[in-house]
Amino acid sequence: MNELEEGTRLALDFDKLTAVAETGSRVVPVVLQDADDRAVLFIGYANDEALKATLDEGIAVLWSTSRNELWRKGATSGDVLRLVEVRVNCEQNSLLYLVRRSTGGACHTHLPSGESRPTCYYRTLADGTTLRPATD
Amino acid sequence: MNELEEGTRLALDFDKLTAVAETGSRVVPVVLQDADDRAVLFIGYANDEALKATLDEGIAVLWSTSRNELWRKGATSGDVLRLVEVRVNCEQNSLLYLVRRSTGGACHTHLPSGESRPTCYYRTLADGTTLRPATD
Repeated sequence: MNELEEGTRLALDFDKLTAVAETGSRVVPVVLQDADDRAVLFIGYANDEALKATLDEGIAVLWSTSRNELWRKGATSGDVLRLVEVRVNCEQNSLLYLVRRSTGGACHTHLPSGESRPTCYYRTLADGTTLRPATD
Repeated sequence: MNELEEGTRLALDFDKLTAVAETGSRVVPVVLQDADDRAVLFIGYANDEALKATLDEGIAVLWSTSRNELWRKGATSGDVLRLVEVRVNCEQNSLLYLVRRSTGGACHTHLPSGESRPTCYYRTLADGTTLRPATD
């Protein structure tokens, strides 16, 4: 079992943003939200190229900050996210991709059934340190 | 008029994340979402101290990456966000604060009526470069 992903202990990775910055990628954070049930799916990162590909191809494209390449969500897993709309915040330092899940799944982790989880936010902080399954 | 906030031209700030990293703050991005209408309000950043204050005080507390201090959302504007639940993503490198808006407003920008906008994502990308008002 992957304790970080399946466990009940909070162990936040406060080094991720520094690692993203150190790659030198010029990116903004992107919230991915299902346009229909309005579930927040995950946060990704996009550079200019990823945003352009998203608009051109009509699917959620991000910039993989670990592989330093364009990441067409679902290219491997099949969990393609079809683009409905792109929104930008007041200060223009983040994006919101409104999408439709093509398979119902959005997370790289899996349910016991083997299907991709519908969102990456499947755990709730029960107290300061303990995680439990979210109820929706 | 603040062109960045009120204008129709896309001018994404790709330097923000680098600037955050350069402060040396150990933070994760936080999506703030209304627990009732499920609107995504904005992305903030939280360190360990901000998360603890959020849980202790029952309101959304973030880390201001520009002022390098705890930011109790609404302390100045009155737009306090009451905490419903904190969720964590699969890789534990981001958070989702489910909140209730106490005034209906969440953005630091204002409607013509003078009220705070209900979300920071009030503009849609109409094409690759032009913004128009979001319809919901």
